[in-house]
Amino acid sequence: MKIGIIGVGLMGGSFALDIKVPFPSSVTYGIDDSFKNLQKAKEIGLIDFIISYNDLHKMDIILVAVPVNHSLSLIPKVLDLVNSNALVFDVGSTKEAICELLSNHPKRGNYLAAHPMAGTEFSGPEAAQKGLYVGKTNIICEFEKTDIKLRKIALKIFNSLNMKTIYMDPKSHDVHVAYVSHLSHISSFMLGKTVIEKEENENNIFDLAGSGFESTVRLAKSRPETWTPIFLQNKGNLVLAIEEYISNLSLIKELILKENEVELSEILNNTNRIKEILNNKLKDEK
Amino acid sequence: MKIGIIGVGLMGGSFALDIKVPFPSSVTYGIDDSFKNLQKAKEIGLIDFIISYNDLHKMDIILVAVPVNHSLSLIPKVLDLVNSNALVFDVGSTKEAICELLSNHPKRGNYLAAHPMAGTEFSGPEAAQKGLYVGKTNIICEFEKTDIKLRKIALKIFNSLNMKTIYMDPKSHDVHVAYVSHLSHISSFMLGKTVIEKEENENNIFDLAGSGFESTVRLAKSRPETWTPIFLQNKGNLVLAIEEYISNLSLIKELILKENEVELSEILNNTNRIKEILNNKLKDEK
Repeated sequence: MKIGIIGVGLMGGSFALDIKVPFPSSVTYGIDDSFKNLQKAKEIGLIDFIISYNDLHKMDIILVAVPVNHSLSLIPKVLDLVNSNALVFDVGSTKEAICELLSNHPKRGNYLAAHPMAGTEFSGPEAAQKGLYVGKTNIICEFEKTDIKLRKIALKIFNSLNMKTIYMDPKSHDVHVAYVSHLSHISSFMLGKTVIEKEENENNIFDLAGSGFESTVRLAKSRPETWTPIFLQNKGNLVLAIEEYISNLSLIKELILKENEVELSEILNNTNRIKEILNNKLKDEK
Repeated sequence: MKIGIIGVGLMGGSFALDIKVPFPSSVTYGIDDSFKNLQKAKEIGLIDFIISYNDLHKMDIILVAVPVNHSLSLIPKVLDLVNSNALVFDVGSTKEAICELLSNHPKRGNYLAAHPMAGTEFSGPEAAQKGLYVGKTNIICEFEKTDIKLRKIALKIFNSLNMKTIYMDPKSHDVHVAYVSHLSHISSFMLGKTVIEKEENENNIFDLAGSGFESTVRLAKSRPETWTPIFLQNKGNLVLAIEEYISNLSLIKELILKENEVELSEILNNTNRIKEILNNKLKDEK
């Protein structure tokens, strides 16, 4: 199996590592705008060979793992170049724009819209890690629009990585990830910004970071080139999510100001439910 | 060394475990409103003996590790009960109110205002863990108001746990922790609330939680009985911090709405500095 990886960073590189476990005879081929990243990816064993777009027609599987704004210009071209039996899938964090864009593409059947719930705050080939995809939830959108033969191949790949596949329409996908993923990034970035602005002496930040700040601000380390386009592509849903978040922050601020201990405790208690919700998740994964 | 622990939960229980490493011959005595917690603490080896307030005068060191509202009523009484050579310290997350309250207490010299930057989102005796205090930053306020002999004992204890002691006046302490700790908890709790409200089907939350939500919402698992009083005691500073946070969220919302990619990227890039700030911390700890 010849696997082309377009974008040999965290997501592309980790896939290249993971896929070799269930499919040890597969060969990975890398394409990237950055030649430095390509060389690094080859050097550290993420990909076997460096190729160009002219070689794409030789690939069986092509993963597009680039920022979602680049996907919009790139995936249509990639589909034009691949052979008619090839499966092209992406791992972008937004799905409505790309599915809409490709809806009338002559090779729509060769494309699968995927979004694995996997990642870290790091980026580039050196951020790639074995096991990143293993056991994770994978959202597939408009599965029925992918050729039936390629659907089987896609599921074979995802199942081989023990991924939990769930199906959503692109609109619902973008709504849900606005809340569960994109808003987390916004809240973390703005927390980082607020604290940096206040603490002119950065020593205070790192001396005091122990008490919960580090994990809450982790996502603020994420790559702007990845996240700016995601925020913009999911503008409609994300703006609503931010507004609801602000409204909850204003509510708690008022309760603190009024020293309304009863309602304050009640809100914290209700939100504690997140513990059970995420514990169920852990149980579910076992 | 006889060590009394008032409040045998996460903070008290972990201290009881940690202190036995450098001081293996010390004996730990527990007091708690909850007899169930006391029994559990004894059963799992956090404390050697259960005592009552009548025995407090026999202790050399007394740690008060209860919610900060209880501290305000409890610490003055504890000071009344202890012998004149005993060191009483607390580990509460706010320092202005307690320092103010004790400023004229006849035994003010027996008290040390401490705030170790350590903790987890869990609570109760079973949440206690060995090493929780080791190597952490410890903020001490109004050190000069503690008896000079007891200061030496306190530093001996904190140094034996490799803690990094920093000194702050209570007012500054409460301002800094409002931003670096308390705001993190508010942002996390309100993120949890916003997502729970939106996702009526909780399966969606745990299926999609992979992409960063889990770490950002971790602090929303924290105990309301601990955090409600902290938020209320640090009302003035925290309300300002929340307002600045809301103002940053409104700013990024506007930039997304206007699709202002340049300013959006710039803000994310600037906030990425948190990576270096926290890396320095890690280097510093090594």
